[in-house]
Amino acid sequence: MLEPERIIRLEEDAVVLLDQRRLPDEEVELVCRSAAEVAEAVRSLAVRGAPAIGVAAAYGYALAVGRGENPDEAFAVLSGARPTAANLVWALREVQAADDPSARARELHAEEVERCRLMSKHAAGLLEPGSRALTHCNTGALATGGQGTALGALREAWARGLVHHVLVDETRPLLQGARLTAWELEADGIPHTVVADAAAGGLIAAGEVDCVLVGADRIAANGDTANKVGTYPLAVVAARHDVPFFVVAPSSTLDLSTPSGAGIPIEERDPAEVSPRFPARNPAFDVTPAELISAIVTEDGVHRQPYSASLAASVPA
Amino acid sequence: MLEPERIIRLEEDAVVLLDQRRLPDEEVELVCRSAAEVAEAVRSLAVRGAPAIGVAAAYGYALAVGRGENPDEAFAVLSGARPTAANLVWALREVQAADDPSARARELHAEEVERCRLMSKHAAGLLEPGSRALTHCNTGALATGGQGTALGALREAWARGLVHHVLVDETRPLLQGARLTAWELEADGIPHTVVADAAAGGLIAAGEVDCVLVGADRIAANGDTANKVGTYPLAVVAARHDVPFFVVAPSSTLDLSTPSGAGIPIEERDPAEVSPRFPARNPAFDVTPAELISAIVTEDGVHRQPYSASLAASVPA
Repeated sequence: MLEPERIIRLEEDAVVLLDQRRLPDEEVELVCRSAAEVAEAVRSLAVRGAPAIGVAAAYGYALAVGRGENPDEAFAVLSGARPTAANLVWALREVQAADDPSARARELHAEEVERCRLMSKHAAGLLEPGSRALTHCNTGALATGGQGTALGALREAWARGLVHHVLVDETRPLLQGARLTAWELEADGIPHTVVADAAAGGLIAAGEVDCVLVGADRIAANGDTANKVGTYPLAVVAARHDVPFFVVAPSSTLDLSTPSGAGIPIEERDPAEVSPRFPARNPAFDVTPAELISAIVTEDGVHRQPYSASLAASVPA
Repeated sequence: MLEPERIIRLEEDAVVLLDQRRLPDEEVELVCRSAAEVAEAVRSLAVRGAPAIGVAAAYGYALAVGRGENPDEAFAVLSGARPTAANLVWALREVQAADDPSARARELHAEEVERCRLMSKHAAGLLEPGSRALTHCNTGALATGGQGTALGALREAWARGLVHHVLVDETRPLLQGARLTAWELEADGIPHTVVADAAAGGLIAAGEVDCVLVGADRIAANGDTANKVGTYPLAVVAARHDVPFFVVAPSSTLDLSTPSGAGIPIEERDPAEVSPRFPARNPAFDVTPAELISAIVTEDGVHRQPYSASLAASVPA
């Protein structure tokens, strides 16, 4: 697995990150020298995944403060980079409140690594031996700076002999599954197969999937979960076939101030990512209602329906 | 709309077809001079869509017989080109039984055009005025050699003021929606928007879709329908939100010898169409159970659940 500092790190005068737009073809580092450059890296998906963009924003803020940028402006430019992930603003508030933003940012990253380890352990325990798992988007080291959320759980489950094979949704339009998840699984030697997003439903119906694991970008107080577009239809089909559907995400993804999924802003990205030639729309996320989610796993443990009380107790003080 | 003979025609010594692999960038004709070349055009998706490959196979057989190829070998090479579409073998049997295969093949094409016209008329009548319709893959002129099945119905409904807007699934991996359906809709001036396949579910949930119209590659005796991969999850999500889900297909798509969807062979295409870099799987179709289909529309009219008796009466003698 990738070392946390290879994915993203704070240096004296820069935030350095592995440019995920270039993977799997090239492993190239992107050097960001201001809050604006970090924000652009987040917006353009050079770094993506809710936990990882939280870490990137924290490092970006620390960098900006260290080089004498206006802290409020740095906060504003970073917090506006992407609208859906809850971790982004949460992480910025953490470093903003710290006496030493750089130290707190590095600590946040280390905490994210530890949260990944814990939630992976909890979530892996939900899988039956020999499971054929389906996952969507990328929720691994690249998405978190740690071992991952859903993909971290699959890593842990593989190490324990609980996972037999991972089916990877390619995740259009930007192919985070086909480019990033497959690359991470290959590196770890975990058997995997990439499929078109639209093929997953038929494979679930054909009995080829024992469980679905996904991450989250924002979880509302009632457990409704915003995640990469395409998560919702997977959850609907999984429910129809009684296939367990697990959300794995750190407590920094919880947004108790949003009562339900209806209040989660859904980012619409550049339509040209879908079609450069014809009119297009490009919602980046969808919302899966809590009733379709078999369990939400955070670093605190396994939450079951109804989620409200349990999730409220999981939010960091 | 494209003229039928621009999509595919039989000439003295060739079957000439618009090469759909090159659309929308280039309008190039492909000239096939033997049954094997027509079969390769079908296999490689230079021509695709269940009704259109039936017409292509009929023309290919007529060409082969005209140039002195062994008829049985021509039948075998053409019928083996793709396994899922029922129309392919049906059309070949029609020309095989004819005294003049060329005349029968041209007649078959003309009949397909007329079937499209009739089923489009029947299906359009199912739409409420101002409908926002969702469709998957390409079921238009390119797929049929006529005005289309599901897309033919949308054309007819647009002409009658019943359709306000068409949402087009891009249809990975080969993008028949983003390349071909959008191209046909643009040519006809029908408002349309391309979305990633995985985005359709969230848009249905958000109340942005009033009806779903798809074609079919094979319909079993009980109404279970094989169609382009991704049709099944659309049907599941549509049913959850009480959005009508219509299958529009000619009676040549019916296969009464197959009792249910479990007996329909699902073509697995080259995994490199999905991922050239990592292990992949590429099922080209999935099966939507009859219970999720609000109506099946053929040239004979609108069939409703339970489908068995009604579909049996629709098969051409």
